[in-house]
Amino acid sequence: MTSNGAPKITIATIARLAGVSIPTVSRVVNGRSDVSPQTRARVEELLTRHGYRRRPPSMRSSSGLIDLVFNDLDSPWAVEIIRGVEDVAHAAGVGTVVSAIHRRSSSARQWLHNIRTRSTEGIIFVTSTLEPLLQAELRRLNIPVVIVDPAGVPPQQAPTIGATNWAGSLRATEHLLGLGHRRIGFIAGPPHLMCSRARLDGYRAALEAAGLGVDDRLIRPGNFYHEAGFAGGNRLLSLPDPPSAIFAASDQMALGVYEAVRRRGLRVPDDVSVVGFDDLPEVRWCSPPLTTVRQPLAEMGALAARTVLRLAQGERVDSPRVELATELVVRDSARRIA
Amino acid sequence: MTSNGAPKITIATIARLAGVSIPTVSRVVNGRSDVSPQTRARVEELLTRHGYRRRPPSMRSSSGLIDLVFNDLDSPWAVEIIRGVEDVAHAAGVGTVVSAIHRRSSSARQWLHNIRTRSTEGIIFVTSTLEPLLQAELRRLNIPVVIVDPAGVPPQQAPTIGATNWAGSLRATEHLLGLGHRRIGFIAGPPHLMCSRARLDGYRAALEAAGLGVDDRLIRPGNFYHEAGFAGGNRLLSLPDPPSAIFAASDQMALGVYEAVRRRGLRVPDDVSVVGFDDLPEVRWCSPPLTTVRQPLAEMGALAARTVLRLAQGERVDSPRVELATELVVRDSARRIA
Repeated sequence: MTSNGAPKITIATIARLAGVSIPTVSRVVNGRSDVSPQTRARVEELLTRHGYRRRPPSMRSSSGLIDLVFNDLDSPWAVEIIRGVEDVAHAAGVGTVVSAIHRRSSSARQWLHNIRTRSTEGIIFVTSTLEPLLQAELRRLNIPVVIVDPAGVPPQQAPTIGATNWAGSLRATEHLLGLGHRRIGFIAGPPHLMCSRARLDGYRAALEAAGLGVDDRLIRPGNFYHEAGFAGGNRLLSLPDPPSAIFAASDQMALGVYEAVRRRGLRVPDDVSVVGFDDLPEVRWCSPPLTTVRQPLAEMGALAARTVLRLAQGERVDSPRVELATELVVRDSARRIA
Repeated sequence: MTSNGAPKITIATIARLAGVSIPTVSRVVNGRSDVSPQTRARVEELLTRHGYRRRPPSMRSSSGLIDLVFNDLDSPWAVEIIRGVEDVAHAAGVGTVVSAIHRRSSSARQWLHNIRTRSTEGIIFVTSTLEPLLQAELRRLNIPVVIVDPAGVPPQQAPTIGATNWAGSLRATEHLLGLGHRRIGFIAGPPHLMCSRARLDGYRAALEAAGLGVDDRLIRPGNFYHEAGFAGGNRLLSLPDPPSAIFAASDQMALGVYEAVRRRGLRVPDDVSVVGFDDLPEVRWCSPPLTTVRQPLAEMGALAARTVLRLAQGERVDSPRVELATELVVRDSARRIA
């Protein structure tokens, strides 16, 4: 019952009155932007007319917790993102519950069970895909969701926070061109991820803007992992006319290229320049320190936390996707061509 | 009131009857081992006689949460420990709240405030020191505490879980001796930490067991960070009779030695063998992959989670300190002397 004794209006009732689905009403209530302006206006009008209460902070079960969910806690990214989320949550007096659901549905079910029994203000997923069943269930529970997405997923049912992959890749390639390199190898990420495509396109765009053709023999497939960088680096260095620089679409692959260079008795950057992508904490300590494109992972985590806390208070997000700027970090692994 | 209507007995009453302090009774109730057998027996007898209820799982506020608290989330260790804790907690249907208190008392106070408002089953600290005020307050709140301690702290007011630092260091030094090295440099950790002392002693013990004297010029001070490895490596390589191998008491310092070797135009392991300590995830990807002593960080986290969950159920821990075995991981950075 509402405070004036009238029966409490439900989302289901509003949906029926508006002639839309329950998830649509829930999207409007949660301030999501993926609803047409007409539908939003109609639903908002009904919500106001029937005195629907958006859960204000004081009325909510106020768990004092947000959830941060990884597929696995083995990514070198993880601690950066955790730090960003925890900083914001801590300042807001909210605890950060960290989980891994291991891409297994049994594990995701257990996790969902835990969430139901203790409640949460909202959930941040760090993932390139969100299982449809999980998505549907979270929508049903009316829990705000934000996706942190270092990999660049296609549009999702929740706000996503990424980084400017294309622009970062363009900038890294321009840097190598500026050092006089003309034959620049590229080792790509997994082809099904949008960020891989964006990074490859940024590389091509820089070459084309410099009036250079793209030599497809200089582009090797990869998957972001060390071994693929090692294999791709080996293939590139075996070419009759090998590249003088190799741009790997992830730091781990760049370190694989380091190892391929070393095993041939060559040196970075004396014989081959290498540039990575991510700026994982450890690459400033490798030998030589790696020139790379920084993804602002902690900042992405912080923005995700601010966004999910805003959604939890019934506010609306301005854009379904935000990309934070990448930045070239120049260290010692790329040098002017001899 | 208890179920039979008698007034509920408090810890304060038991303490008065036993002639001991309230914290002592609380230690017995929480199954801590730092109580003399006589005192424990007296308190246990009074607890039983007066029907004191140790909070059984069903009666507790059962937050469904444990807390994992770091000083800072910038350590490359952090994600390993989080993974270990989360695995156990997830399986137990318990959420893992991760926090950083930044060694600032304002931040610790905020954190304590958050804990009080939402309750927790127990707390795992990852730290080399625990602020006395914080310790006292947690004791007062009667919240089980376990310390994960990769650094080897002196005895604490709570169970601690560490690793066998001395044995790991002995093993690493023996490995270098087995490869024919006789002049082995050592770069130490911060002298105020017990683990630094244990690692230095393990190194000395191996040399002495091999009938070699310890040359103090081969021992350089350090602090576990990269820069100290770089500086110490430089000093060792500048000696008129430089060592053929350098054992650094942390992986980050070992990577600093790599950089010192590279900057001199030398190579690991061709010119200098290098061994580290920790086995951080990234050192398998450095060039060359690092031979190092593995600290079982994920396992230490898992054991801490199991221990804190047992304490939360009123069970007792067997030992105030447990050390899990370190293990030498042989990769490519140390080789037989030419």
